[in-house]
Amino acid sequence: MSAADSAAVAALASANWHNTTSTPLTVPALQALPSLPLTSGAKAEVVVEIVAAGLNRADVLQRKGMYPAPAGAPTNVPGLEFAGTVASCGNAAKRWAVGAPVMGIVAGGAMARRIVVHERELMPVPAGMALTDAAAIPEVFLTAWDAFTQAHLVAGEIALIHAAASGVGTAALQLCRAMGVRALATTCSADKLAALAQFGVAPGDGIVVVDNGFAAAVQARVGAVGGANMILDCVGAAYFEENLRAIAPRGRMVMLGTMGGAAGPAPFGMLLGKRATIIGTVMRARPLEEKIAIAQAASARLVPMFERGLLAPVIDTRLAMHECGRAHQLMEANGNIGKIVLVW
Amino acid sequence: MSAADSAAVAALASANWHNTTSTPLTVPALQALPSLPLTSGAKAEVVVEIVAAGLNRADVLQRKGMYPAPAGAPTNVPGLEFAGTVASCGNAAKRWAVGAPVMGIVAGGAMARRIVVHERELMPVPAGMALTDAAAIPEVFLTAWDAFTQAHLVAGEIALIHAAASGVGTAALQLCRAMGVRALATTCSADKLAALAQFGVAPGDGIVVVDNGFAAAVQARVGAVGGANMILDCVGAAYFEENLRAIAPRGRMVMLGTMGGAAGPAPFGMLLGKRATIIGTVMRARPLEEKIAIAQAASARLVPMFERGLLAPVIDTRLAMHECGRAHQLMEANGNIGKIVLVW
Repeated sequence: MSAADSAAVAALASANWHNTTSTPLTVPALQALPSLPLTSGAKAEVVVEIVAAGLNRADVLQRKGMYPAPAGAPTNVPGLEFAGTVASCGNAAKRWAVGAPVMGIVAGGAMARRIVVHERELMPVPAGMALTDAAAIPEVFLTAWDAFTQAHLVAGEIALIHAAASGVGTAALQLCRAMGVRALATTCSADKLAALAQFGVAPGDGIVVVDNGFAAAVQARVGAVGGANMILDCVGAAYFEENLRAIAPRGRMVMLGTMGGAAGPAPFGMLLGKRATIIGTVMRARPLEEKIAIAQAASARLVPMFERGLLAPVIDTRLAMHECGRAHQLMEANGNIGKIVLVW
Repeated sequence: MSAADSAAVAALASANWHNTTSTPLTVPALQALPSLPLTSGAKAEVVVEIVAAGLNRADVLQRKGMYPAPAGAPTNVPGLEFAGTVASCGNAAKRWAVGAPVMGIVAGGAMARRIVVHERELMPVPAGMALTDAAAIPEVFLTAWDAFTQAHLVAGEIALIHAAASGVGTAALQLCRAMGVRALATTCSADKLAALAQFGVAPGDGIVVVDNGFAAAVQARVGAVGGANMILDCVGAAYFEENLRAIAPRGRMVMLGTMGGAAGPAPFGMLLGKRATIIGTVMRARPLEEKIAIAQAASARLVPMFERGLLAPVIDTRLAMHECGRAHQLMEANGNIGKIVLVW
């Protein structure tokens, strides 16, 4: 183990992990590697040497014991996204050359040195992009893009993006700009409002949430449309009724987090009257076939948008992997605009 | 005014109508008819002589002042569906011959003698079917069919149909059978359970709801599917959490009523974890273009299914229009299996 690895192990071990064991950086998937049947066609998996991994709120929640790793993911190695290079390929893996720059999302373990994934779960890093930038792409852009896809968001509509200065928020705002959608952007801090213009938010379309209120501000901006056609929500209970007040008739709300409460009152009459649709979603627990499907679709459509300059990762801070404790503190302080990336 | 008309007026006037006026059977849309520009191409509307109208729970709610007519619908003439014959056509109406048997849904006024509608809002009565049977089709079959369409319900899936012995319920069960969907059917009364077999419910797939509980019964029947892929709900708050317990991962719930409460607690964490979708819907308040769209789609796909014998209206009771008071009482007693139809 290198000195950097040892420092990272020590930092992780001291960072109040739930279910901390004596070897928090083991990579269970890798341990099975020697048994790969290298002479048959059975293994379409590759080993990726990880260069950088984006930090996500799920990592913080996992550290606190509030979001345990799903079955099959390592319980004590966090990390949901990575960028790196292909280190070796199973004998049925034909898609990548050794050394190819790749990125991806996984259910856990992305903050290891190496990881084993199915070759079709990987996306190419946009041409010319540094791996330490690319690590900020997968989780937030795939989350926002998948939410927009599920909500059938189309050009000309109005989207309400909550927590707009967050990683998912800044990705969503860029996607809105790229696809001809007007974004109304909320933030809880007036300090962050000015930063939203660079992601395409029009003057006046930024909204500071006060006492969980924003529907009147939305309605004042949308006129006859009657609300936001689509809402990207990570707050949950604390915003639910206000979201229904802010949504347009036949609007779609995608709920991808419950930072403001996992249970609370719901005005079903308003849901019916507005003919609204509520879509609950999580990325992490999806089965392999869905992860492959989104990686393939994103490789075909999302990655080229980075190469055309329509999208760019937003990085607030890069830290060395052994500074992961500080990274968690930064995220919990909620002062970042864009992603926190940990680099080996 | 005929003797029958006078009796109906008297019955309606004495039936505790909200906003009762001295002329509860006026048909405002008809009053505008003499001004139709009969020499220009402006009017694609037709007059329908109504023969029978289905009674709906919305009519009962409207009578009680709990569901006022939407803008543009007569406030004091109830009725959301009808069957009748085309009496006359505007000069731009080319679709129907005078005398053609038609049926349709409207936002109100279907319990009048005549009604004016856009010609494309009408559907043909299935070949050979009596108008007094056809009047039981539009509201319940279009509601169930539209819900299934919105939920993307497909063959091989499992649908949970609440209030399965109701008008919408029996329509939904028949649609499930016709389209290769397994229906789990709930009813609050064990008495109604036996009647469900005729609508394709398999032995053991009927569930009597006790204390608003049914999820364990659903889960016991679905095995590895993990719940119902689709839920048709008219209960709202009282069933919401239990519905989420009963729904399969990636399941879709269509809420088309709130008979068990219009507001209540919601477990958003479960909504996310199951990646469920909740679709609120109402039929009545839709704009003309949507009503035309569903009438046209149903004319092409749903009406032929009646003619092929895959679907049939389910009629509990037929009463003369002047017995509408008794019809409301029957519906409120909740003992009917299928529709109550009022006949001129």
